[in-house]
Amino acid sequence: MASVRIREAEEGDCGDILRLIRELAEFEKLSNQVKISEEALRADGFGEHPFYHCLVAEILPAPAEPQGPFLVGYGLYYFIYSTWTGRNVYLEDIYVKLEYRGQGIGSKIIKKVAEVGLDKGCSQFRLAVLDWNQRAMDFYKALGAHDLTEAEGWHSFRFEEQAMRKLAGR
Amino acid sequence: MASVRIREAEEGDCGDILRLIRELAEFEKLSNQVKISEEALRADGFGEHPFYHCLVAEILPAPAEPQGPFLVGYGLYYFIYSTWTGRNVYLEDIYVKLEYRGQGIGSKIIKKVAEVGLDKGCSQFRLAVLDWNQRAMDFYKALGAHDLTEAEGWHSFRFEEQAMRKLAGR
Repeated sequence: MASVRIREAEEGDCGDILRLIRELAEFEKLSNQVKISEEALRADGFGEHPFYHCLVAEILPAPAEPQGPFLVGYGLYYFIYSTWTGRNVYLEDIYVKLEYRGQGIGSKIIKKVAEVGLDKGCSQFRLAVLDWNQRAMDFYKALGAHDLTEAEGWHSFRFEEQAMRKLAGR
Repeated sequence: MASVRIREAEEGDCGDILRLIRELAEFEKLSNQVKISEEALRADGFGEHPFYHCLVAEILPAPAEPQGPFLVGYGLYYFIYSTWTGRNVYLEDIYVKLEYRGQGIGSKIIKKVAEVGLDKGCSQFRLAVLDWNQRAMDFYKALGAHDLTEAEGWHSFRFEEQAMRKLAGR
């Protein structure tokens, strides 16, 4: 029988991760915003000072099955900093392919991020969810997360590159 | 006449920065959440792999004035990662003391963060704002930022340490 393994991503996984990133963006109805390349993922995650870390969920087929291991999900995270509580971990993306949902793979990724965060001295674990994705919101709440936008009124703001250039006078 | 200078924070500024962090949290009506110490700020911002970077706004008194330079604001930021656009910069906190507002100090800090972000290859600049702080929301919008919570429905979620420990089975 096939089994699932959560492991740290390797540089050679970047092509598969990019395909999963695109699937997630399509699900979020925001795929027009995906500009990233496999080369950028390789350079930014696997250099001396990585900008991100990534976990992958890999299906290990049973010995008799012809295909090799393959990726069905990922969780991309990094370390951030709160001026109130210090080191924090941020889960930028989490995704499991539709046909592999309901097996606890997403929970395994989230648990692993919590472990890695605690090992690094983090006291909070943040993420962002789209408000129409009620299933995801319920899922994170059931695992113990709070909706800070609802509770305290936090809104996310973003300057795009053009606005950054204007600010910087470039 | 006194002038203002925006410069990178040094380890010796951490005591002053902590005082400003506490002032900002009081303004945000969330000061009960401030747990950080000067020691943590020193260790986490000035080691080999800093968890954050910080700009400070310093008043340089005129030569005839008796007091030395003093800090009246700060902007604490770090680098994050978007799976859609790659390297991003995140402004966690920005604060200018009440009596020094209206002189463009906040704008100078934001402009400097945009410059630093562009220099590092970032294509987006994110921050979070409380929805009752209309003045701040209007300010960031006037500078070119978009409210992603309003436009796309992003909500911030957070697991506290206790929930992280439960996830990790610790």
